[in-house]
Amino acid sequence: MSIRIGIYGYGNLGRGVECAIKQNSDMELVGVFTRRDPASVKTVTGAKVYHVDDALGMTDKIDVMIICGGSATDLPVQTPALAKHFNVIDSFDTHAKVPEHFSNVDAAAKESGKIGIISVGWDPGMFSLMRLYGACVLPDSNAYTFWGKGVSQGHSDAIRRIDGVLDARQYTIPVESALEAVRSGKNPELTTREKHTRECFVVVKDGADKARIENEIKTMPNYFADYDTTVHFITKEELDRDHSGIPHGGFVIRSGKTGKELEHIHIIEYSLKLDSNPEFTASVIVAYARAAYKLSEAGDKGCKTVFDIAPAMLSPLSGEQIRKELL
Amino acid sequence: MSIRIGIYGYGNLGRGVECAIKQNSDMELVGVFTRRDPASVKTVTGAKVYHVDDALGMTDKIDVMIICGGSATDLPVQTPALAKHFNVIDSFDTHAKVPEHFSNVDAAAKESGKIGIISVGWDPGMFSLMRLYGACVLPDSNAYTFWGKGVSQGHSDAIRRIDGVLDARQYTIPVESALEAVRSGKNPELTTREKHTRECFVVVKDGADKARIENEIKTMPNYFADYDTTVHFITKEELDRDHSGIPHGGFVIRSGKTGKELEHIHIIEYSLKLDSNPEFTASVIVAYARAAYKLSEAGDKGCKTVFDIAPAMLSPLSGEQIRKELL
Repeated sequence: MSIRIGIYGYGNLGRGVECAIKQNSDMELVGVFTRRDPASVKTVTGAKVYHVDDALGMTDKIDVMIICGGSATDLPVQTPALAKHFNVIDSFDTHAKVPEHFSNVDAAAKESGKIGIISVGWDPGMFSLMRLYGACVLPDSNAYTFWGKGVSQGHSDAIRRIDGVLDARQYTIPVESALEAVRSGKNPELTTREKHTRECFVVVKDGADKARIENEIKTMPNYFADYDTTVHFITKEELDRDHSGIPHGGFVIRSGKTGKELEHIHIIEYSLKLDSNPEFTASVIVAYARAAYKLSEAGDKGCKTVFDIAPAMLSPLSGEQIRKELL
Repeated sequence: MSIRIGIYGYGNLGRGVECAIKQNSDMELVGVFTRRDPASVKTVTGAKVYHVDDALGMTDKIDVMIICGGSATDLPVQTPALAKHFNVIDSFDTHAKVPEHFSNVDAAAKESGKIGIISVGWDPGMFSLMRLYGACVLPDSNAYTFWGKGVSQGHSDAIRRIDGVLDARQYTIPVESALEAVRSGKNPELTTREKHTRECFVVVKDGADKARIENEIKTMPNYFADYDTTVHFITKEELDRDHSGIPHGGFVIRSGKTGKELEHIHIIEYSLKLDSNPEFTASVIVAYARAAYKLSEAGDKGCKTVFDIAPAMLSPLSGEQIRKELL
C-alpha cells in the first residue's frame, strides 16, 4: 500500500516534491492544491490539480499533506490550520519564529491526533542535524555554517525592488580562506564579512543610473551592507542564459577537541553541492513525509522537527535491511 | 542528577571514554572494570578500578555500562551477557555478524528490560548515519565510503605477525583522483585498488630478509594483495617518533539525481579528520550512552543502533533549546 501524498501550494518547491514522489515507489501523489484556478495550472508529471478549498473534503484520501508555501506569510497560517486535519510537513525557515510556529503546530496536531513536522529541508534540515550531531559527539567544539555558492532568492528579490532594476540574481559565496582557517582547527572568530561574499547580476532599465543602483545594493542594510559585494550589470538575455538555474549548497564544519588535556583535534565537515535547491529541499521533505506517516501509524502525534525523528523512520526499508546494507 | 557510567574493558577505547566523560557535565564515571588485577591498572583521570567480577554487584550504581572490548571475541559474549543486567553500549564492528549480534543483544535486553545500543562509533556509527540519510533523501544515488588517511590496527597487526618483523604501522590512504571522480557526480565504478592505497612503516630484526618481508606484505591475501602497497623499513626510534599517533578519518560521499528527467545532480559529502581514532569513537559512544539512559528512563527496551535513535536523544539540552540554538 502506498503512502498517499498531497502537495499544498505549487511553486518551485511543489514541483520539486512532485518529481521527488516519482522517485519513491512506496508513495503516490493524490494531487496538487493551488489557490489559482486549477484549470490554469499544468503540473510537471501530470498530477491532478485541485483548488485549496477542496482539501478539507479529502482528509480520508491523503496520508500526509506537504505544505509548499512561503515562510513569511503562508506557513505560519497554513501549517497549524492543516495540522487540524492532516499529517503535515513544511519547510518553515524563519529561524527566530520557530518556537512560536512549533508551539502552534504542536497544539493543532495534538488536538487532531496528527503529526506535524516543521522546518524540513537542508537548512533548516540536514544542516541542523549536522550541527546537533556534532555538538553532541564533540562537546568542546565550535561549529561553522557556510552557505553557497548558491542563489539567494531573498537577496535577488531585494535587488529587484530597487528603482530601475528589471531583474537580478544574487549568489552567496563562501570565502575560501575562511573555510581553510576553520578546517585547520584554529577555531577562528569570523565576522560576517570574512565568511561570505555576495555577487549580483543585475538587469536595468534603459538609461537607469547604474552608479546609483550599485550604491543602493552595496549599502542595503541587513542584505548587503555587511558584505563585500560585487555588482555586474548584464542584459536580460545574459541573465536568462547564464543564471537561470537555482543551485545552492554549503558547509557545516565542526572543529573540536578530546583527550586528557584536550590535546587532540577533530574536524567534521558536511557539505552539499546542489544543482537545484528546491528539488533537493523537496527530496528531504519527501523522506520526512514517510516518517510522518510511520509515526502517525504508530499512534504518535504533535509537532516534530528533524531532531525528534530516528533516521530509520525515513527509510522505506526494514530495520533488518538497513542494518545489513548501511550500518 | 548525573548519568552514572561504567567502563567495561580498559584499553585505548576505554581510556578515550574515560576522558570523554569528563567533557560531559551531566555524566559521572563510577569506575573502570578490568580483567587484570585492579591494583595494576592506572587510569588516565584517576577513575576507580574494579575487577570485572565485581560488576554484577553494582547494577544499582551504574546507569549505562560502556563495553570497550574487541569485536572479534569480547563483544559477542560480553554485550549480551551484560545486557541482562545493565543498559549497555558497544562499538561492535564486524559487519557480517551484526544481525546475529543484534539478535543476541535484543533478546537479552528485552528479557531484562534494558537498552542495548550496538555498533556505535564513526564507522559503524556516524558514517552509517550518513549512508542512511543520503539513501533516504536521494533515492536515485550512489554512496562511496573512503577511509583514511589513518592507521589500521588490523593491518598493522597483520604485518607484525610476519617472521622477522618487530613492529609496524599501516596507513590506509584514499586515492585523491577517485575522490575527485566521485565528487564530480560521474558515479564511477571503482575497484578496491582504485579507492585506497596502503603505506606500511616496518621495523625488522637485525639481519632480516627485507625483500622477503616486503613481498609477504604486498601479497598477503585480503589485507594487501588487492591494493597498491608501499613498504618503508624504518628504525624503532623512527616508528616511535613519527608514527605513535592513532589518527584516522574518511569520507562518505553520495552523488544523486533529481528532477523530471533526473537532470540535476547533488553531491553530499561528510568527512572526518581525526587526531585520535579511539578518542573520537569514545566521544560518539558517550553521546549515545546518554541516549541509552534517556530511552531506558522512558521505558524503552531492547537492542538499538544509531539508526533507531532520534538525534535529540544525544543532547543534554532540552528540545526547546536545541530548536532555538541549532535548528
